[in-house]
Amino acid sequence: MKEIYKVAIVGSTGIVGRTVLKVLEEKHFPNCTYTLFSSSKSAGSKLEFLGKVYTVCELKENSFDSGFDYAIFCAGGEVSKKFAPIAASKGCVVIDNSSVFRMDESVPLVVPEVNPEKIFENNGIIANPNCSTIQAVVPLKPLDDKYTIKRIVYSTYQAVSGAGRQGILDLENGIKGEPPKKFPYPIFNNCLPHIDVFLDDDYTKEEHKMIDETRKILNKPNLAVTATTVRVPVRNCHSESINIEFEKDFDVFDVKQLLQTSPGIIVVDDPSKLYYPLATKADGYDDVLVGRIRRDYSIKSGLNLWVVADNLRKGAASNAVQILEKLINPV
Amino acid sequence: MKEIYKVAIVGSTGIVGRTVLKVLEEKHFPNCTYTLFSSSKSAGSKLEFLGKVYTVCELKENSFDSGFDYAIFCAGGEVSKKFAPIAASKGCVVIDNSSVFRMDESVPLVVPEVNPEKIFENNGIIANPNCSTIQAVVPLKPLDDKYTIKRIVYSTYQAVSGAGRQGILDLENGIKGEPPKKFPYPIFNNCLPHIDVFLDDDYTKEEHKMIDETRKILNKPNLAVTATTVRVPVRNCHSESINIEFEKDFDVFDVKQLLQTSPGIIVVDDPSKLYYPLATKADGYDDVLVGRIRRDYSIKSGLNLWVVADNLRKGAASNAVQILEKLINPV
Repeated sequence: MKEIYKVAIVGSTGIVGRTVLKVLEEKHFPNCTYTLFSSSKSAGSKLEFLGKVYTVCELKENSFDSGFDYAIFCAGGEVSKKFAPIAASKGCVVIDNSSVFRMDESVPLVVPEVNPEKIFENNGIIANPNCSTIQAVVPLKPLDDKYTIKRIVYSTYQAVSGAGRQGILDLENGIKGEPPKKFPYPIFNNCLPHIDVFLDDDYTKEEHKMIDETRKILNKPNLAVTATTVRVPVRNCHSESINIEFEKDFDVFDVKQLLQTSPGIIVVDDPSKLYYPLATKADGYDDVLVGRIRRDYSIKSGLNLWVVADNLRKGAASNAVQILEKLINPV
Repeated sequence: MKEIYKVAIVGSTGIVGRTVLKVLEEKHFPNCTYTLFSSSKSAGSKLEFLGKVYTVCELKENSFDSGFDYAIFCAGGEVSKKFAPIAASKGCVVIDNSSVFRMDESVPLVVPEVNPEKIFENNGIIANPNCSTIQAVVPLKPLDDKYTIKRIVYSTYQAVSGAGRQGILDLENGIKGEPPKKFPYPIFNNCLPHIDVFLDDDYTKEEHKMIDETRKILNKPNLAVTATTVRVPVRNCHSESINIEFEKDFDVFDVKQLLQTSPGIIVVDDPSKLYYPLATKADGYDDVLVGRIRRDYSIKSGLNLWVVADNLRKGAASNAVQILEKLINPV
């Protein structure tokens, strides 16, 4: 074990990058030193981090020559595509937030509560999954282990922060009557059934991510999954209506117990007290809130869940930092 | 056929009542005269309607003694429970917006595009279905006729106007940081998986309405249906993610054609042009917008739809007025 790890944060001035810095401050790894990178546009910015002022460096092709151990990339697909392989070739293990490498068979796609063992099967790049998938698989994994999932129907209620800073601005400015810049239609007073681009089969890329990444993370390549992903006028935290069919039957009480004792989950489920997961309650936390746990009587072994998490934290930054934590402290 | 029909609007000062008046103005039935009723609290209010100023009358037990032909009730369950049977006993046919009589076997539950023939099987009361159910069954009916629906999974994105004027105020005031009065939690920046009260099986009454009313309107008492109903921070118009399994297989092109030629529907579905149903586009119209029409590859004959409609109009007022229209003009 090395005494000091050199860690690069690429895309440190963006909304996910800043959340990564916040989570790193909270976790406080004493044996890490950090270098913050950005595009030339933001390079030179000053960021307060761990009680010091860091000057953000411009990311260049030779940036990784100085021997980084780990890097968290959160600068988008184009930057990852170009620079992650360069970093990996120099011996740096990259935790990549973009979608570029996620479905690459040689790249592990990791949610530490679900498949932590994959972290050490990396060839220099570890992919951080899509936000809406991460929060879904955290409760799905223990349920699959016990009852064997047969089919999943996802409908999502995704926050504007998932579209970056301009997504948040579109909502804020929309309230004042201004037209959107990030979204093709106003997000204020609207639900947009359109996240990421449309593909040839009339599904969106976001829907494909949920389908494909769920299969890969749960290691069930033929799992029946469908998804409708929707942007809603909520600042932060994604909510999801998840309908599941199992092979084996279950007792709802046992399901609640199982989820309550599974890592990364807080069960918020007492209708008599009006307890259920809410975006405003998940905001700022790393746990996935699970509630409205009830039998779906329309099929033999069906279950409905309502799952909410902070998409910037558990859906991106915190999941990446959890992976880093396992890398630097594998016990 | 009578020359002049006397029509009572009960609950005329509420948000649905006012929408009924607006739709009646647009439809303009020349052979109807109207009397507007409200509770004692709002009685005496002046409402502009059909170019005249109407004084709203207090609803009393003897209000129907003067011989009304038809009444549209939109004053809530308690008023309907007490006054609709009185009106019916005096020979008035009541179109009731509340949920009180919907599941009564002797009461037709009508969406004119779906089961208009039921209108004339009434015993004095015709129930107007729940808003989220109305907009769903309009596209489901032609699909069921052709492909036979086996199972439905509903996830809804319901506007605050469905909770009345205070629902809208909760959203408006929530933007300014004020606490909610109608909803148990802030609706601004939040999705509440809780509409109407919770029942013993941990489903909400709204979810039961969708399940039970879908079965009754489609005349499929054993249809497999499940629902998760969610309030979202949208002023008006409900959106719905509907996942359907059919008995018979279909061609997606044929499904689109069928929906396009079915009454009450506008197909808005061209991903290449970013055309899909939106709350902001449905607002103020009576048609149900249907889009994101695509095969669900996770089962044999599965289909995903995104369905949006104005819950105050098609989901309440316009559907009631359409029923009135059939009553006064049955051809």
